[in-house]
Amino acid sequence: MRGNLLYGQSGGPTAVINASAAGVFLEGLAQSESIDRIYGAHHGVVGILEDDLFDLTEEDRTELLLLKQTPSSILGSCRYKLADPEVDETDYARILEIFQKHNIRYFFYNGGNDSMDTCRKVSHYLAAKHYECKVIGLPKTIDNDLVGTDHSPGYGSAARYIATTFMEIYQDAIVYDRGQITVVEIMGRNAGWLTAAASLAQLKGCGPDLLFLPEKPFNLEQVIETCRQAYAKKRILTIALSEGVRTEEGKYLPELDADLAVDAFGHKQMGGAAQALVGILQQHIPTKYRYIELSLMQRCSAHLASRQDVEEAFLLGSSAVRAAISGSSNVLLGLKRPEQGLYRPEIRQLVLDEVANHEKTVPLDWIKPDHSGMTQEYYDYALPLINGRPDLVLDEDGLPRFARLRLEPVRAQ
Amino acid sequence: MRGNLLYGQSGGPTAVINASAAGVFLEGLAQSESIDRIYGAHHGVVGILEDDLFDLTEEDRTELLLLKQTPSSILGSCRYKLADPEVDETDYARILEIFQKHNIRYFFYNGGNDSMDTCRKVSHYLAAKHYECKVIGLPKTIDNDLVGTDHSPGYGSAARYIATTFMEIYQDAIVYDRGQITVVEIMGRNAGWLTAAASLAQLKGCGPDLLFLPEKPFNLEQVIETCRQAYAKKRILTIALSEGVRTEEGKYLPELDADLAVDAFGHKQMGGAAQALVGILQQHIPTKYRYIELSLMQRCSAHLASRQDVEEAFLLGSSAVRAAISGSSNVLLGLKRPEQGLYRPEIRQLVLDEVANHEKTVPLDWIKPDHSGMTQEYYDYALPLINGRPDLVLDEDGLPRFARLRLEPVRAQ
Repeated sequence: MRGNLLYGQSGGPTAVINASAAGVFLEGLAQSESIDRIYGAHHGVVGILEDDLFDLTEEDRTELLLLKQTPSSILGSCRYKLADPEVDETDYARILEIFQKHNIRYFFYNGGNDSMDTCRKVSHYLAAKHYECKVIGLPKTIDNDLVGTDHSPGYGSAARYIATTFMEIYQDAIVYDRGQITVVEIMGRNAGWLTAAASLAQLKGCGPDLLFLPEKPFNLEQVIETCRQAYAKKRILTIALSEGVRTEEGKYLPELDADLAVDAFGHKQMGGAAQALVGILQQHIPTKYRYIELSLMQRCSAHLASRQDVEEAFLLGSSAVRAAISGSSNVLLGLKRPEQGLYRPEIRQLVLDEVANHEKTVPLDWIKPDHSGMTQEYYDYALPLINGRPDLVLDEDGLPRFARLRLEPVRAQ
Repeated sequence: MRGNLLYGQSGGPTAVINASAAGVFLEGLAQSESIDRIYGAHHGVVGILEDDLFDLTEEDRTELLLLKQTPSSILGSCRYKLADPEVDETDYARILEIFQKHNIRYFFYNGGNDSMDTCRKVSHYLAAKHYECKVIGLPKTIDNDLVGTDHSPGYGSAARYIATTFMEIYQDAIVYDRGQITVVEIMGRNAGWLTAAASLAQLKGCGPDLLFLPEKPFNLEQVIETCRQAYAKKRILTIALSEGVRTEEGKYLPELDADLAVDAFGHKQMGGAAQALVGILQQHIPTKYRYIELSLMQRCSAHLASRQDVEEAFLLGSSAVRAAISGSSNVLLGLKRPEQGLYRPEIRQLVLDEVANHEKTVPLDWIKPDHSGMTQEYYDYALPLINGRPDLVLDEDGLPRFARLRLEPVRAQ
């Protein structure tokens, strides 16, 4: 059926979520028989609730293409959680009202686990109210923790950033004629996919000596002993540490550090896991320390995006539009890896109810028990995802050229 | 005169110091009429004192070329300070002994201010002992604080990293529908050149709202008020902060934070300037905060090096060999910018005594008094230095390909 298209972004930004946006917008414009106007929600579902939408129909096509190299969420993001519709229908009724007002018949929501839950709830509500609208979820998460899809757009680029940057940090960390322990903190609250990516640098001889993923309980005494032995052997140690590691009792490292150091009680700005681990280790292994947080850079470094990742993100966006026009709804578009042979992912549709609120972590048997790295299975999994560099357009001064959209507000028709 | 060449690296690594090494090695190999063998000192002057030298004469030429894209100091670095020769001659006598043993007639030392002082002292000692050896210093510092040269290799690449990364962080930091203050900490203990580079991102509309350089005293009350006003106006604030900012009394931010927060007394691993500023600001401006340290990445990100910087570093290395063969000694090879017209730097020789132990800071009138940015003079200065991306050779898996040297120890002739 003919109508308008609405696209929204939600959750943490990535280097390639705007590539999916570009796919949706450009395919939407190409499908003028089914789609009238292309709208974007400002700050995801919050923009829908506030009737704060952009009309992207008249944007310059070249600028839309430049979204493929523009990091973060161009329309703004949110972390808004919809209520359970059985408890409170307010938000849903409002969403329906806005969809009716703007004749939204195709809705695409791009995000991670929480966003797929939002997508699922909206999809069910609209169906229950007999409002015809195709609802499709698009995956996005550097954490790579969405189930049902082989991997999620955003992961390959973050992994390429982490592997490359770890190689460079390693080169720097080994340079002096003295002992040193360098702890690099990597994102991932429950899943260690990103920390695992540091192991790819080992393939070049520039990787971490030890990796700690949140999938395995962080036994402090054992960790100290492991570090002590590794330090005694190598004298210059680099460690990849997930921000999400925690003890059997579920305590995160910064909490643990605060427990151990009574004087630090109430310190205003709590440091991260790497800072805490360094604080603990230096009580046991006297040497020079450095901690590094890869922070936002690991999710927004479009200049180091993986070409494979960018193209998959774009393809998922454009495929979602075609799938919706063909009648698909209440699905997430995921990626399926061929059983064997060359890596050439296929697109698959997953029912939203099957994927929302689940979490995919790293298989335990892919993590070497002595924390020294990942197994070949992980390399086989990850290497195709980080491959290739995008043909970045730079400004004449050598700095990145991000998309410049006009982002006109939607006017009443 | 015919003899062997010795090259050493000292001080903090950069993305392009190995490009200078490549220039020295490849030109040294080409000058076989004057130069017999090419040696490298392991960990700079420490390797000389310990007779720990590499013989690079038989290295694969392609690998030597790959040094142009290999970050950090390939031979290892040091921070060793030679004694005043009038107080203690021991080290100098040892250096002379090693130079005689290995017939070193051309000595190149690549580093920053302290390294040029080492270079000067060695040069004078050898001359006083009538040992004929041409001694040339090669500049290297991301801090850009060497005097006499328009700029130092390493700065352009670090500046390109900082400007690009700030653009990406900015895109990420503005994404949510809520207030936030993001403080990005940038290296530079006394000179604000690197922090100034964040202002280049302003040219793309993705730059910091406020910059704090160490050249200007950091008046805490004024800073809080400036931030308060800027936050009231913009609600999402990004700040570029030099690690070296300090109060009129000379206190660095982490010291200041510890003073203010009695509970943090004795905290084991002191955080950086950004963490401290956030700790202070959040007592005055309630909002969400994030602090980011660009840490080692800003000095070792060869993947984001400036092509101009790489080529200048290489050219300085090869020019140093030619200059030494032509008889130059006791000089630093610096860069001179043409008075007008296209940026096309010339190489100039500076007497080591004129440059060692001085420090070049950012001109105060290039810093806008309201901390909102830099003047056009800075843009004109910096933009040519960050320009161009190197043609990086990647491995087939998409990760960087660093030089693989055999680094054979020097054998007795």
